[in-house]
Amino acid sequence: MENPEIALWSRFESQFQVSDDPFHFTNSWVSATFFCENTSRHVWGFYNDRGCFVLRFMPDRPGKWRYVLSSSLPELEGLSGEFNCTPAPAIKGPVRCDERYHFCYSNGEPWYPFGTTAYVWNYQSEAVQEKTLSSLAASPFNKIRMCVFPKHYRYNLAEPARFPFPGNIEKGFDYSRFDTAFFDELEKQISRLDELGIEADLILFHPYDRWGFSRLPEEVDHRYLRYIVARLASFKNIWWSLANEYDLLKEKKMSFWDAAIAQIKREDPSGHLISIHNWHNPPDHYRSNAHWYDHHNPALTHASIQHHDMHFVPEWRAAFNKPVMIDECCYEGNVDLGWGNITAQKMVSLFWQAVCLGGYVTHGETYLNDDEIIWWSHGGTLKGESVPRIAFLRRILEEGPARRIEPLPWGSHWDTSMGMSGGNWGLFYFSDNCPAYKMMTMLPEGDEYQVDIIDTWAMTITPQPGTFRHGDKLALPGRPWIALRLQKI
Amino acid sequence: MENPEIALWSRFESQFQVSDDPFHFTNSWVSATFFCENTSRHVWGFYNDRGCFVLRFMPDRPGKWRYVLSSSLPELEGLSGEFNCTPAPAIKGPVRCDERYHFCYSNGEPWYPFGTTAYVWNYQSEAVQEKTLSSLAASPFNKIRMCVFPKHYRYNLAEPARFPFPGNIEKGFDYSRFDTAFFDELEKQISRLDELGIEADLILFHPYDRWGFSRLPEEVDHRYLRYIVARLASFKNIWWSLANEYDLLKEKKMSFWDAAIAQIKREDPSGHLISIHNWHNPPDHYRSNAHWYDHHNPALTHASIQHHDMHFVPEWRAAFNKPVMIDECCYEGNVDLGWGNITAQKMVSLFWQAVCLGGYVTHGETYLNDDEIIWWSHGGTLKGESVPRIAFLRRILEEGPARRIEPLPWGSHWDTSMGMSGGNWGLFYFSDNCPAYKMMTMLPEGDEYQVDIIDTWAMTITPQPGTFRHGDKLALPGRPWIALRLQKI
Repeated sequence: MENPEIALWSRFESQFQVSDDPFHFTNSWVSATFFCENTSRHVWGFYNDRGCFVLRFMPDRPGKWRYVLSSSLPELEGLSGEFNCTPAPAIKGPVRCDERYHFCYSNGEPWYPFGTTAYVWNYQSEAVQEKTLSSLAASPFNKIRMCVFPKHYRYNLAEPARFPFPGNIEKGFDYSRFDTAFFDELEKQISRLDELGIEADLILFHPYDRWGFSRLPEEVDHRYLRYIVARLASFKNIWWSLANEYDLLKEKKMSFWDAAIAQIKREDPSGHLISIHNWHNPPDHYRSNAHWYDHHNPALTHASIQHHDMHFVPEWRAAFNKPVMIDECCYEGNVDLGWGNITAQKMVSLFWQAVCLGGYVTHGETYLNDDEIIWWSHGGTLKGESVPRIAFLRRILEEGPARRIEPLPWGSHWDTSMGMSGGNWGLFYFSDNCPAYKMMTMLPEGDEYQVDIIDTWAMTITPQPGTFRHGDKLALPGRPWIALRLQKI
Repeated sequence: MENPEIALWSRFESQFQVSDDPFHFTNSWVSATFFCENTSRHVWGFYNDRGCFVLRFMPDRPGKWRYVLSSSLPELEGLSGEFNCTPAPAIKGPVRCDERYHFCYSNGEPWYPFGTTAYVWNYQSEAVQEKTLSSLAASPFNKIRMCVFPKHYRYNLAEPARFPFPGNIEKGFDYSRFDTAFFDELEKQISRLDELGIEADLILFHPYDRWGFSRLPEEVDHRYLRYIVARLASFKNIWWSLANEYDLLKEKKMSFWDAAIAQIKREDPSGHLISIHNWHNPPDHYRSNAHWYDHHNPALTHASIQHHDMHFVPEWRAAFNKPVMIDECCYEGNVDLGWGNITAQKMVSLFWQAVCLGGYVTHGETYLNDDEIIWWSHGGTLKGESVPRIAFLRRILEEGPARRIEPLPWGSHWDTSMGMSGGNWGLFYFSDNCPAYKMMTMLPEGDEYQVDIIDTWAMTITPQPGTFRHGDKLALPGRPWIALRLQKI
């Protein structure tokens, strides 16, 4: 058989047929080492039921790759093979952290996260799933937070048809096996997202549970992690989110999270992005990082934070020295839960504030529907007014000079949010403050700038006549939601 | 001579003529001890120039008061006198802290602070001063923050006609004397405020200075404090604010503030309210009390705080165990300074948030004017849209059951502001959150409540049909600025 040709960043897969034995889930294992010149990657295979072991790998460099199997099954031990990885210049590769506070594709092109949240869109009817994908396709969103396990919560009481483990809530679940049909479906969903250019920020554990998945025996948790990484690490658009609100998973100790993060880091040959997301109680949420998992852990690629106040972004950047993503900042909507009824104006404002301070924020929408299909959990149809404004901000950012925004030190302790990219290009956001003018003391001395007044709600960009230097006076509309774009001449 | 009759809480004054000698300001002193049954009060007199020493005292109980003078001047030493203090049931007496987190008149009636800010209204032309007093008379404000010393700052560059010390900016000032005409005028201004039922929260030091008053020799500072307390402690409506933004007075050490507070506490026979107000830098302003004067000092009657986030109010109450007043929370207006251009909606929202969390907030207004008369500094005419809404809140509070609002523990970490008074009466404020309904889980179980939906911006109160119990569902308008009033049946 000729060596297969595998494009860079696409999936090599090989299947190995053995005896059909459900005990393979727990008792047998297969792994392989992949080599390409001086590069090697250790990859776990997984049992796909019906006597089939599967090995998957996403090559990260062109060239001839060889692999050799290890296995507890003598018939697989030592098997080997090879494939040619061909360059794929049109494919930008997985999203990575860039040198410090931002993200880029593997080819170095910048990538700006504009995420949304639909925790269990993957558990909804096929019709709702298709609506979700159409909504996403027409939206500015390029990342989605979604769960592996089903969700038990207000507005989330329907019983799913299928679970990661065989079984159901009446009879219980067989934790010694996995339901491969569930994972087949999950893989299709992640692939559909990838076709739309959307990253799947996959939440591996969460506390909203009536089935027992939030308090599995630790041995099952680790088997589950190995399984899901073996199945999904070859998906270009996968991210690992250890948990949503990890601190509400009261039965898991901090040592579990340390070990789980270390396991993924060790077993994912493709080094996908990894984070862990907090809940936190008052009054501790006033502190910048009390009761959070310690984001200093170098295995975490970025800080995934739940917080409603974007002013902390510069502090968190400095503290953790990695990208800061506010993966939950309240949702636009009208549910009765306090985090789920902010205005569209405020949602847009949170995006602008975070971006101007060198961070990123994740969208969510919680408008009540007669059918109880609410975007934040189920997906469906987006109806909030923030969406086009978020698209507007994304366009402004992507049309910028492809450099990263760094927050400027504040001129005064009540000041607005402002960030610049190397002194050449900047955004200055007044939020709901309404100054009638601005003394442009934030412009570096000596340089000249072209200034646009942006109405972030009306989505207008009004170039100002002339140029501006340090200390010049700029007349402003004196209404909320105004931003400035500054471009050095 | 018959004993004079002095009504309770009004002013006893006695004058003593000696030689006309400007050195009396520094070299001579007079004090007196006032006795009434088992009560005694030590009172400092002050030199009013032209050979006249003055002794003032506001009696705090009816009955026959006797006093005996001590003095460095042999002709005053040992002089004595008496007066009858008569009951004055119509006068409620000075404002005090009540048992813990709130304020009341000395007769026990509750007093709810609705303060405003016009730092140097007292330094403006007579015409502007009259406008200020008319504006105040028509406003909901019952406290004003104002400075003894003139203010040097943006929009505050005019040179005053008169200062607390004789002299001017060209020739310098004579710190060994006081300009008694300045103090006569200040007393008139404070009396005019009292006639309107307005407390004068008098700022004794501040950093906005081109004359040198913020860096006087410590000996002068202490002489100034003794002088001003001797002159003004008999004014029923005086409060002592040690400083505005004390931490910007860089040349004063913490030991100075300790000593100044102790001096006022010792020398004010009437025990007026005392506080000290902070500035604070980022990122420290995210901490609840870094770089603040330590409000635990029992000599401080309440915490006077500059902060923009009302969610800390319950934390500060618990920390300091005294009333919490946010004496600066940003101002409604359109100046270019970040703290001076919030919307009227936000100003109103800050009032509601603080009140529902058991604290109080102070108003300010910074709309640009062609004549550069801006309320926050100069007084003049109020034009903001928050004023009638603040009046509306004051009415609701004063029509309440005259009990104090205590914040309720939050149901969730994103929740709204809510406070109740002994389970019988409460306010629940959604700020800019827009829930379409509310599950009334905050109502104590077992009791029935009448509920009004308040639109805090439109100023409407809509009683809801029927009664509500713990867990009942209440439909809401799903727009910002909604509050609930809860009354136990």
